Amino acid sequence: MELKRIGIIHSSYTDKGAAPRQGKYSQQVSTIEILPEYAAGLAGIEERSHIVVLYWGDRANRETLTAVPPGRTSEKGVFALRSPNRPNPIALCICKIISVKENSIKVTGLDALNNSPVLDIKPYIPHLDTDHDYQQNL
Amino acid sequence: MELKRIGIIHSSYTDKGAAPRQGKYSQQVSTIEILPEYAAGLAGIEERSHIVVLYWGDRANRETLTAVPPGRTSEKGVFALRSPNRPNPIALCICKIISVKENSIKVTGLDALNNSPVLDIKPYIPHLDTDHDYQQNL
Repeated sequence: MELKRIGIIHSSYTDKGAAPRQGKYSQQVSTIEILPEYAAGLAGIEERSHIVVLYWGDRANRETLTAVPPGRTSEKGVFALRSPNRPNPIALCICKIISVKENSIKVTGLDALNNSPVLDIKPYIPHLDTDHDYQQNL
Repeated sequence: MELKRIGIIHSSYTDKGAAPRQGKYSQQVSTIEILPEYAAGLAGIEERSHIVVLYWGDRANRETLTAVPPGRTSEKGVFALRSPNRPNPIALCICKIISVKENSIKVTGLDALNNSPVLDIKPYIPHLDTDHDYQQNL
């Protein structure tokens, strides 16, 4: 299972210490640049207000299986945590589209380090991407 | 960027025609079996009610960049659609945990075909995984 780099993220986060812990906490505008050979896949994206961005955490540790979450004292498994370190460091952010121009999308809500490879973009669709039980409790 | 298969999905969907169009519409119970060498990553998962499941759409067409969505007449790009066909067929489902036993998790809300490779599991955290603008409108 070999991934293709469909684009690159330009952000102001140049090292791990600079990035917010989760994309949701990022107010910075980042630019997702889709490579020309994949640009046809963007047709219609400008009609969306929010997108799911999957990117590759190329600076993550893929051997880590447990970690102590911030503010806790006991270890948990990485599949029970949102740590960037995991066997397949596929990071997931729900981003707000600020603008779309040709093959570049400006967004907020992205915690990616500068130059992270983009793997996929999907439209964010609330009735698919939230759980009904949770919706009732919001 | 080479992916590791961390597990396998056992589902009743044996071919494309049998699977629901989106995981959200699946009432079937599927089983996510994590391989023994990654099982330590599950510690604490039993405390969660919902998880984000990323799996590999191994029967998807990776060359497709545009498609006509169901009920429409004009083409859109795959990054503006939830089609399984896309350059990196990383499928995303928000699943409800029914039970956890050793390295197996039974869930609903998963549209994966039988034997699909599992890539990652993350806890579903509403305040991270929904957009605030949308929350206000639910």
